Amino acid sequence: MHLARVMTADGPRHAIADPDHRTVRVLADQRFPPGPSPRLTGETLPLEHARLLAPVVPGKIVVIGRNYGGRGDASGTLVIHLKPPTAVIGPGEPILLPAEAKDVRYEGELAVVIGTTCRSVTPDQAAAHVFGHTCANDVTAWDIGTDGGQWTKAKGMDTFCPLGPWITTDADPGAAVITTHLNGELRQHGSTAHLTRGTAELVSEVSHLMTLLPGDVLLTGTPEGSAAMADGDEVTVTVEGIGTLRNPVATR
Amino acid sequence: MHLARVMTADGPRHAIADPDHRTVRVLADQRFPPGPSPRLTGETLPLEHARLLAPVVPGKIVVIGRNYGGRGDASGTLVIHLKPPTAVIGPGEPILLPAEAKDVRYEGELAVVIGTTCRSVTPDQAAAHVFGHTCANDVTAWDIGTDGGQWTKAKGMDTFCPLGPWITTDADPGAAVITTHLNGELRQHGSTAHLTRGTAELVSEVSHLMTLLPGDVLLTGTPEGSAAMADGDEVTVTVEGIGTLRNPVATR
Repeated sequence: MHLARVMTADGPRHAIADPDHRTVRVLADQRFPPGPSPRLTGETLPLEHARLLAPVVPGKIVVIGRNYGGRGDASGTLVIHLKPPTAVIGPGEPILLPAEAKDVRYEGELAVVIGTTCRSVTPDQAAAHVFGHTCANDVTAWDIGTDGGQWTKAKGMDTFCPLGPWITTDADPGAAVITTHLNGELRQHGSTAHLTRGTAELVSEVSHLMTLLPGDVLLTGTPEGSAAMADGDEVTVTVEGIGTLRNPVATR
Repeated sequence: MHLARVMTADGPRHAIADPDHRTVRVLADQRFPPGPSPRLTGETLPLEHARLLAPVVPGKIVVIGRNYGGRGDASGTLVIHLKPPTAVIGPGEPILLPAEAKDVRYEGELAVVIGTTCRSVTPDQAAAHVFGHTCANDVTAWDIGTDGGQWTKAKGMDTFCPLGPWITTDADPGAAVITTHLNGELRQHGSTAHLTRGTAELVSEVSHLMTLLPGDVLLTGTPEGSAAMADGDEVTVTVEGIGTLRNPVATR
């Protein structure tokens, strides 16, 4: 299942995206996560005209640092930061560059979406608490605060957490190709097989620090090739088996 | 007005606390913030038997670092971190010390609670967006991650953000005495007059980084005297004109 959120005449609604048939079917049930056989309203939208929103409204967003081959060490310290929920935007919404930042970089990432409350779980238990996966862009202003360890500033600004296009519940994120394109040009190319800590380890370790709730999101780190964006750019993050998250870049 | 949240037979409800008459009156309206003349259900509880909860369920909690006389410089960099909503507990709920942390410190603080959405406001505009103030304890595990700048770990664990006992809407936080007692012994004694950046400056500066929403909370920094807590301790934070936030300390 690809669980999306879509803007309807009645406001934002959960929906099932069907990329093969280019449709989005609106769900009657707005709880997160929906049950295994969610009821439909009957409203079906053509995918290319649907306004997709971020597929989840997270209570917290945990960002994992330095987690790809060569950039970290699973025996080393887990590096985590938080982004506030106000940073989240959906597919197609513009990433807004603040005037004072000249080095705002894309970081294409696999995102894990939590489905059930978990606290101090083992890696073996973790998968049962994962609802699905989506694409994320861990936008980071490298010239705002990072020298002083002020990652909250660098990563927490409005629009700095694009998520989408939907949450895929049946993808295997163990060895998925992840790519980032800037204006159509390949900039990042990795595989989740090269995550220093895999998603089960990440959910487990973070759940020992803080309780994870349904809708919470973990960004699992970015492969090499992150670089600055400019006004007018378009950045896309694609995770194999999930989909493509596309965002224009503009000035705030 | 002292806006509290209280556990009732119908679940958590906003309520008006009246410390003089030792009562809590349950509100009919559960929106945050309530209007200026909120409707009551008629249910009144004796304050000493009411189970007060954290007075707000924040979407984000912005923690200001080094903001008291001698500990910061208003011309210097604003230091901010985030705590996740899962860190919040209410009055009387135990602060839980994780087994792996031996230096978990209290930090008594004035907390600002946002009432209306604000983005890039000036200090003069900021006050209009503040709903009220409460007491906070910015609990921090100084031996978990702080050496590597991992403040999310140090400050983000469950129970590390006691808030309460209520939000006071008509206190003047410009020169309020703030004290922290450990087991009845005075440990911190400051005045919000000595904030390096006052609350209006903080709301303004943070609102330039990220949009502040109703219910968001800013912790404004702690005076000197923060120190470690132990299982069995009781810590109280008192802000003049607001009230006293009391929490026991236990092992997770």
